[in-house]
Amino acid sequence: MPVPNRAGLNIVKLDVKDVRFPTSLGGHGSDALHTDPDYSCAYVTITTESGKQGFGLTFTSGRGTEIIVLCIRSMKRFVVGKNAADIFADFATFWRAITNDSQMRWIGPEKGVAHLAVAAILNSLWDLWARLENKPVWRLLVDMEPEELVSTIDFRWITDVITKEEAIQLLKSKKAGKEGRIKTLLENGYPAYTTQAGWLGYSDETLKKLCEKYLKLGFTHFKVKVGLNFEDDYRRCSAVRRYIGDDKVLMVDANQAWSVNEAIEWMKRLAPLKPMWIEEPTSPDDVYGHAAISKALAPYGIGVATGEMCANRVMFKQFLQSGGMQYCQIDSARIGGINEILSVYLMAEKLGVKVCPHAGGVGLCEMVQHLQYWDYACLSGTMEGRLVEYVDQQHEHFIDPCVVENARYLAPKLPGYSTQFLPGTIEKFGYPRGSEWQRMFKEGVFPPPDEAETVNA
Amino acid sequence: MPVPNRAGLNIVKLDVKDVRFPTSLGGHGSDALHTDPDYSCAYVTITTESGKQGFGLTFTSGRGTEIIVLCIRSMKRFVVGKNAADIFADFATFWRAITNDSQMRWIGPEKGVAHLAVAAILNSLWDLWARLENKPVWRLLVDMEPEELVSTIDFRWITDVITKEEAIQLLKSKKAGKEGRIKTLLENGYPAYTTQAGWLGYSDETLKKLCEKYLKLGFTHFKVKVGLNFEDDYRRCSAVRRYIGDDKVLMVDANQAWSVNEAIEWMKRLAPLKPMWIEEPTSPDDVYGHAAISKALAPYGIGVATGEMCANRVMFKQFLQSGGMQYCQIDSARIGGINEILSVYLMAEKLGVKVCPHAGGVGLCEMVQHLQYWDYACLSGTMEGRLVEYVDQQHEHFIDPCVVENARYLAPKLPGYSTQFLPGTIEKFGYPRGSEWQRMFKEGVFPPPDEAETVNA
Repeated sequence: MPVPNRAGLNIVKLDVKDVRFPTSLGGHGSDALHTDPDYSCAYVTITTESGKQGFGLTFTSGRGTEIIVLCIRSMKRFVVGKNAADIFADFATFWRAITNDSQMRWIGPEKGVAHLAVAAILNSLWDLWARLENKPVWRLLVDMEPEELVSTIDFRWITDVITKEEAIQLLKSKKAGKEGRIKTLLENGYPAYTTQAGWLGYSDETLKKLCEKYLKLGFTHFKVKVGLNFEDDYRRCSAVRRYIGDDKVLMVDANQAWSVNEAIEWMKRLAPLKPMWIEEPTSPDDVYGHAAISKALAPYGIGVATGEMCANRVMFKQFLQSGGMQYCQIDSARIGGINEILSVYLMAEKLGVKVCPHAGGVGLCEMVQHLQYWDYACLSGTMEGRLVEYVDQQHEHFIDPCVVENARYLAPKLPGYSTQFLPGTIEKFGYPRGSEWQRMFKEGVFPPPDEAETVNA
Repeated sequence: MPVPNRAGLNIVKLDVKDVRFPTSLGGHGSDALHTDPDYSCAYVTITTESGKQGFGLTFTSGRGTEIIVLCIRSMKRFVVGKNAADIFADFATFWRAITNDSQMRWIGPEKGVAHLAVAAILNSLWDLWARLENKPVWRLLVDMEPEELVSTIDFRWITDVITKEEAIQLLKSKKAGKEGRIKTLLENGYPAYTTQAGWLGYSDETLKKLCEKYLKLGFTHFKVKVGLNFEDDYRRCSAVRRYIGDDKVLMVDANQAWSVNEAIEWMKRLAPLKPMWIEEPTSPDDVYGHAAISKALAPYGIGVATGEMCANRVMFKQFLQSGGMQYCQIDSARIGGINEILSVYLMAEKLGVKVCPHAGGVGLCEMVQHLQYWDYACLSGTMEGRLVEYVDQQHEHFIDPCVVENARYLAPKLPGYSTQFLPGTIEKFGYPRGSEWQRMFKEGVFPPPDEAETVNA
């Protein structure tokens, strides 16, 4: 699959918007460390000379989105004036340039604000590429030859685990049966689990209703937030276990609340409820800590899941090497776009770790379905023990929202990466000028923005 | 030492400026990954009701400083309106609040832009505290009882290596001889090494002149930048070894240029020149990689040094645990201020690793001297194998610049943390409005700022 013709593909504009949804009003998304999230995003639109567009975003949690937006504005210089076809033809070099600018890398490198900004920009480029090919992103990926796919990846700092040549061989070795697997995906979709029943902010009544609702919808895997108070956790997890029965699967998620030893002790006490995994037991940076927790909990049949706040492929490499991660939860908007995420999938496959993407937020479900489709068709070749997170929120803002039926993500069909907003979304939820925010400021539902939050408006 | 009286200490203002020096013009500070740094900083001034001020900064490298500045503006809410005495009385709680805001932590947590912003703010608070006590920061620290000092630290996520109680006991066990060590510091200062002779951008002629100059100034330890081209490295390191002789010490610094295996091979070939350490051989996030390199180079008598880009105490914890760091190079402006740095010193002492602070840039020498003075007086109690980096640049902008004589940092005497700029510095080098920048834009020495770089002006 050759890259597109250069004609008309000079990128003439990169626009970025601060978009926030007032989710804190309902306690949606609340967990041990994130008590009042307003699900938000920095939303990028790139436009070529010929008027082709790409849309990409990085998820945020409300305050601070203005900083990502400014960072993306500062990174325009890497994109505007470039030809998109040239970028795609040597994508790894472009990736290196935007992540490792001699001056800007000091404020990263490859982590935090700077890398979230890179993710939004890279996501918009992949969206553009797929639209140019008139394919959903997963088909764009699936149709690439191993050499082409691997050419988008910067292997710096991971060659001790996987080299470019090994990656190509690994993909080649998985080609048999690919068409059959694509057919399976198109017919049956990809399994999802729900986090919807288990937010910390929900009452017991809500919990019960939601378990019943998602059981009826065909879900078999349920995730519950834990970590603030053991007695409360035990009561809520017991209730969920009772509602879903012993044949269904329970996972728990502490969102980094514990120290290493606390995590081990807490989970030993929750072990009778048979959770399949404990997610984010401690600091997202603590590889050694996760390895210690994994080792201690293995005899109880509890695995460790983490990744949504894992900063980059070097951190993933270590989690995968160390035995500290039994479920690799890649995030579509934190590490540097599909280019870097592919390298994580390849390392996980080589080291025999299951990838179960993090989703929810804004647009994350829309994006990760494409990645996991590619993984099944071209890399792991199996759905065994693998699921994609599903949270039924914020999908209504997108032109091409993900579709989950009978607890399976159905194949995205429209060209692109599925994160283009509907007309009107930015007019309503753009922060702070959007009409919904202006109304809420006026009615006193939210305080007015800080002066720092208005610099991009 | 009780915290100051609350009267007049309500913080009424936090001001932040983007300040940049055009160091790229001279090739100063150039290394394998940072080819054209303009040494810069985000400079914070806090002011109390009674007119007391604190000054703090975080070092940056030119482009991207505007993002840190905006982040600091977004963090004003944690500081303005608070009483400084209340902050000092429960400093760890304040630290947790500013680093772990429920919404903003998503764009970190505790790394990159967000943590650099925290560092600048925390540095200004410690400067204010020391001024209120009419002491240099090192004396403020040295005069604290172990319980008081430790009360400033957030031990979350490091209790598997050191608890609050252990930290207090460790400090208590080092009290004997403290007064004598303070006398030694006041009389003899603290040993420094120079990085001045070895920037990649310098010619051989410059290299020779600088070696001679720093030998005459009494330096015994010389650091050379390496990593782009082996033959060039070997030639320059051989030359430096020849100029300084076998009785002096050579260190080399690759600034993250290599993969793990490359680092090992490259350093084995440089081993005949007897470098004491290899600094930043690979990704600053790769604990396992550094451990592998340390193991491979130990038989050659080469240690591994890293830390200037180590994101936070959890990353330091792992480097210290893993055997991947024989020299711990804390940075005064990357991790979250003195509060967090103290926790790294305590872990390093417990695990038997030498702390040799990173310095240079803007204000880093000024700050780390205070920390290392405290370490000698109160914690490690020895200078054996320990040195503070010294780069003779950008000191002329400060009211109280560090003083290095006979290759030793002399005791800072003025109250505070030594990073208050001279009157006129911001007027000249404030970016982009400062008179020097306006002149350079006009003369075409530098291109004008991006629109993103003007939002804070």
